[in-house]
Formats: sequence, C-alpha cells, structure tokens
Amino acid sequence: MKIIAIVAISIDGKIAINSHHSSDWTSPEDKIFLHNLLDNSNVVIVGNNTYKNAIKPLSKRKCIVFTNSVDTILKKSDNLVYCNPQNIKLSDLIRDYEIVALLGGTQTYTYFLKNNLIDELFITIEPLIFGKGLSIFDCADEKPNRFQLLSVKKLNNSGSLLLHYKNENHSANFKKL
Amino acid sequence: MKIIAIVAISIDGKIAINSHHSSDWTSPEDKIFLHNLLDNSNVVIVGNNTYKNAIKPLSKRKCIVFTNSVDTILKKSDNLVYCNPQNIKLSDLIRDYEIVALLGGTQTYTYFLKNNLIDELFITIEPLIFGKGLSIFDCADEKPNRFQLLSVKKLNNSGSLLLHYKNENHSANFKKL
Repeated sequence: MKIIAIVAISIDGKIAINSHHSSDWTSPEDKIFLHNLLDNSNVVIVGNNTYKNAIKPLSKRKCIVFTNSVDTILKKSDNLVYCNPQNIKLSDLIRDYEIVALLGGTQTYTYFLKNNLIDELFITIEPLIFGKGLSIFDCADEKPNRFQLLSVKKLNNSGSLLLHYKNENHSANFKKL
Repeated sequence: MKIIAIVAISIDGKIAINSHHSSDWTSPEDKIFLHNLLDNSNVVIVGNNTYKNAIKPLSKRKCIVFTNSVDTILKKSDNLVYCNPQNIKLSDLIRDYEIVALLGGTQTYTYFLKNNLIDELFITIEPLIFGKGLSIFDCADEKPNRFQLLSVKKLNNSGSLLLHYKNENHSANFKKL
C-alpha cells in the first residue's frame, strides 16, 4: 500500500485563502494531472470541508471522509465512508487498497504527517501569491521530515510547477496504526 | 532600481520554525547562491529579528534594518541604518541603489508585497517539511498577486530547488512610496 499526498499551493505555500475557498485557482493542467492520478488510485481520503468543496467531482470516486461529526465509522454508500480517525484503527479501513490518494485539507494532511504515513508527495506550485491563507500542515510540535525530490515538471507556459517527493522514512509507521 | 526578494523555504512553505530559528537548515548550495546575489546587490533590507539572527554575515554589508524601535531613521554607521518604514519615505532611502536585496522576515516581506514593491523573487525550496512555522507573508487581506516563472534550477543532489519569479505588475507602485 502506498499513501500519496496531492497538494496544490501558491508560491507562498498556501493551499487556500480560507476553509471555504474552492480549488478554482489551480491551472487546467494541474486538474488534468490530479484527475489522472485519482483515476489510478483505489481510494481518496479527504477532510469534511475539502469533501464539501469538491462534492461533485468526488462523489463518483471511492472516498473516506475524515470528520469529528461521527464517533467511529458511518458507511453512507459503497463509495462513501465517514470516519473519525481519532477513534478507529485506520489500517482496517485502508489496508486492502494499493494506492491511497490524500487530498487534504490541513487537518487531514497533518494527521498523516504526524503519524509518518505519507509515502509520496505531489506538490503543484501555481504562480501566484495569496499573502495569507491555510498552510499544508499545522502540527503542534516541530519535527523536520526530510523528503527526497524525485522529479520536477513544468505543467504549462504560465509557470505551474509539479514537484514529486518521496518520504525518506518511507512507510515506517504504517504498522503502528 | 530593482527590488529582489530572496527566500528559503521548506516544502511546506515555511521560512523558519519560529522567529529565533536561524538559517542553519538551508543547503550549502543555497548559501553560495545567496552570497553571490548579495555580492551583486547594493543594499540589503531586513527586519530586526532577521538581522540579529545573521548579524555576523550581514555586518560586512550595507544594510537597512526595519524596526519599530526607532521613530524614523537612525544611522548607526556607513553600513547600517535602522528605520521605521511606517514613518519614513522609503524611496528617499533607497532610490539611489540599483539592486535592493530583501531578506525578510515575514513582516518585512509582507510590507513589500502589500505595497507591490517586489520586482523579482528567488525562492529556494529545501527538501524538508517543518509541519509548522512562519509563513513568508502575513497580509491582513487576501489579494492574489500573479508572478511569472523565469527559471527552475536544481542546486544539488539533495533536491534543493531554486525558483526565480518576476512580478507581473512589475515596479508598478514604486512611484507611490
């Protein structure tokens, strides 16, 4: 199993201006890349805000939605499961999937970083500056994690850049879940 | 005159873990790039914390230090001027310099972004994740600024990346200072 975090950020490292900000600011080329990667993933994990902001495109995919609004697990349909990651054994939910795509937002990315569960990271840097907004992660403690740069690709002539990283402590902690 | 912002960030867009965090986490190759660029600049502008964190290397350069601890301007030596950007006409201080290097931190970068004074931006992305820390900018209002990607360069085999951007609203506001 491989957990791949997929992130689009501004030059100043923000994933959105606020929690209601949709992803309409990303480039068409990033959207094509994202959809291809999701097509090749077996399940998508998102936080509830991110899910609500992208409910239409996500409703056709198999999704696990992280939320505090359920105690443990609530299966809504074959394609949609709500779960509270604090109160469940996540490995029971995802162990049978080969590729897990992690789409954010901040709290969800942070959960996976804190537990050292991110195997790979795709970051698209769009050529604009927000000046404020939500960071990718919001950990309580600092614990620098070293990643390895696998590739850099220019997605278009506007200057959208796609960076691909691998966690140097690859899959170390999944057993502990 | 050209104002060039020079920034080193983690993958997650942080310039430091906190305001006392020095720049010892950047790669040797980024330091070489930075020193070459500073050698070709006529003056460096920094905030007081950034200056104190790098006082030894900066003391040999011509510096303007932004601080609230002076009312207007305090000239300490031929190489060192303290000023309060809220109470002075910045153009009087820097109009005769050809290349102004802007080294941060957050408040200083934000002042220049808010006033649309950044002509070019060099960002080095070091291949690590802090998980928390200081953002490049901290504006009160969002006002997305579009930049143009000029180049991408791999600085080393560890995966440090140097991105070079140009402000699409180039030098628009300097007259207004």
